[in-house]
Amino acid sequence: MIDSGRKVKLNELAAEAGVSLSTVSKVLNGRSDVSARTRTKVEDLLGKHGYQRRPGLPSRDTLIELVFPELETAWAMEIIRGVENVARTNDLSVVLTESGDRHSPSPAWLTGVLRRRPVGVVLVFADLAAEAKATLQSRAIPFVIIDPAGDPASDVPAIGSANWSGGLVATRHLIELGHTRIAAITGRDDMMCSFARLDGYRSAMNTAGIEIDDRFVRFGNFRVDGGRSIARELLTMPDRPTAIFAGSDLQALGVIEAARTLGLRVPVDLSIVGYDDLQLAQWSSPALTTVHQPLTAMAEEAARLVIRMSESTLRTIPRMDLATRLVVRDSTAAPIAG
Amino acid sequence: MIDSGRKVKLNELAAEAGVSLSTVSKVLNGRSDVSARTRTKVEDLLGKHGYQRRPGLPSRDTLIELVFPELETAWAMEIIRGVENVARTNDLSVVLTESGDRHSPSPAWLTGVLRRRPVGVVLVFADLAAEAKATLQSRAIPFVIIDPAGDPASDVPAIGSANWSGGLVATRHLIELGHTRIAAITGRDDMMCSFARLDGYRSAMNTAGIEIDDRFVRFGNFRVDGGRSIARELLTMPDRPTAIFAGSDLQALGVIEAARTLGLRVPVDLSIVGYDDLQLAQWSSPALTTVHQPLTAMAEEAARLVIRMSESTLRTIPRMDLATRLVVRDSTAAPIAG
Repeated sequence: MIDSGRKVKLNELAAEAGVSLSTVSKVLNGRSDVSARTRTKVEDLLGKHGYQRRPGLPSRDTLIELVFPELETAWAMEIIRGVENVARTNDLSVVLTESGDRHSPSPAWLTGVLRRRPVGVVLVFADLAAEAKATLQSRAIPFVIIDPAGDPASDVPAIGSANWSGGLVATRHLIELGHTRIAAITGRDDMMCSFARLDGYRSAMNTAGIEIDDRFVRFGNFRVDGGRSIARELLTMPDRPTAIFAGSDLQALGVIEAARTLGLRVPVDLSIVGYDDLQLAQWSSPALTTVHQPLTAMAEEAARLVIRMSESTLRTIPRMDLATRLVVRDSTAAPIAG
Repeated sequence: MIDSGRKVKLNELAAEAGVSLSTVSKVLNGRSDVSARTRTKVEDLLGKHGYQRRPGLPSRDTLIELVFPELETAWAMEIIRGVENVARTNDLSVVLTESGDRHSPSPAWLTGVLRRRPVGVVLVFADLAAEAKATLQSRAIPFVIIDPAGDPASDVPAIGSANWSGGLVATRHLIELGHTRIAAITGRDDMMCSFARLDGYRSAMNTAGIEIDDRFVRFGNFRVDGGRSIARELLTMPDRPTAIFAGSDLQALGVIEAARTLGLRVPVDLSIVGYDDLQLAQWSSPALTTVHQPLTAMAEEAARLVIRMSESTLRTIPRMDLATRLVVRDSTAAPIAG
């Protein structure tokens, strides 16, 4: 599988490392019967000499890898579905792994990938550790990052979505219904998507000439409990907001629950816009008006991209944001006059 | 990979088929460079001679396969999580495929499996086509069925859950709260789990000496819209039920929505019990009292079982139902007096 022009070089590299060519080959292919010390030595030399497997060689199997830091997130399923769709039409099978933390998958996963030699890797992470990047690149295994947090590292192929526009259309919808006391709950303040959506909200308010009440702008978490506790605070203020733009559908469910326990009817007494448009947005009571984040389409795009990269070297690092759009359902209405 | 005692036989089989031994080996391993006609001929002879690869041989890769007829179902994620948990602790990777219809995965999937040679296969189907069973068995690839519909074919290893008990505990809970006008919406009338849960409901009512109003027993579908439309009918009756036992959490969400649009408060005016205990049951407003169907545990059990089967031949076909249990949250309460 190694083209002959490079064979000599691997021979030299083996000599330099003081190991056999077969050992070098084992390291290249992620085989487990190599000591950690030898593996490190060979990897270092591969890096030093800038070894690069020729792209376009057939991968051993017909696999595409999908890696998540955690499957607990509500939108994992939408992403799985997207990769699965593209895999099916390309006669590939999807290897699904939950590994690592929010920043990078674990080293154990990396070794497994070299052994499985997939067509490519789709990662749901903000970044990939430098060693992992180097290892995948040297084996000509392409990878693409899907980053719903909206801030992927600058040197990796990445698919995101238009967070700022999402914040804008959600808020504009509430303004058009006649609301002026509009609150925004966004995500954690260490995620760029939180800021992007909030900036969209601010721009909508500013261009409509509506002053923003600072007490109405909150950072939280994207979970149900986050929405519930912040909404309770907002809704028990004397001059409470008549509409809340939530940072996620789950957060919006928390807002609905807070409203219910306070005896407020949605959308009569309170309008709510969610974010993500997960399946459950249709199932909530009332059905959620929300911003559609095209998670399935993002995953499809990432899978298609990785397949394309496996077939030819791309000139530039592909990066794109897919469009978001508003989906109007039953949780928003005009405010009660007065 | 074929033990020598059988080598002769494969030689003979190749001769009988008029092909080379290497062609037979290609068919055994799901390689694509064999004509469909040759493949069928060799498969037929393998079946005729009862060829059986010796179990316990190392699989080529460290994969475990998980196959769904569709990933659209709300509980797919819970099952994926379970298989992923067991795979991780056993250093295996999960290949996830959406294939076929409710009855069996597609032939294309089967060919892929032979090529990938996984440790084993977990299927979310009621059954597996006879040819697929024979092919997997002859290659010593073990498989286990997870059948949430509650009626797996009798000759396959299967993991289910205690549907009858689930119906019983849900109804008993409502009776203990003081309800007597209790309706039951169950699933489609071609799924045995619908009948099992309904029978549990009947037994709870009968042993409590409460007469069942026939109009209160309905078959529907397990989706939100099914719950909504049947609940509308039930709740607009003059002598409407004060409690509804729904066939799934999604159905229960539909019941909540029907109640809301009719101006009925849950649980004050209407108690609702769901079924499944999906994550979203905690997120509904109010949070759902529901029957926990241990989907993740069922998947874990199936994955563990398939690994055990890959290591040794089991004497009997393993089949089991895991226990269900009631989870009380905020959607049930005592009926209003009078």
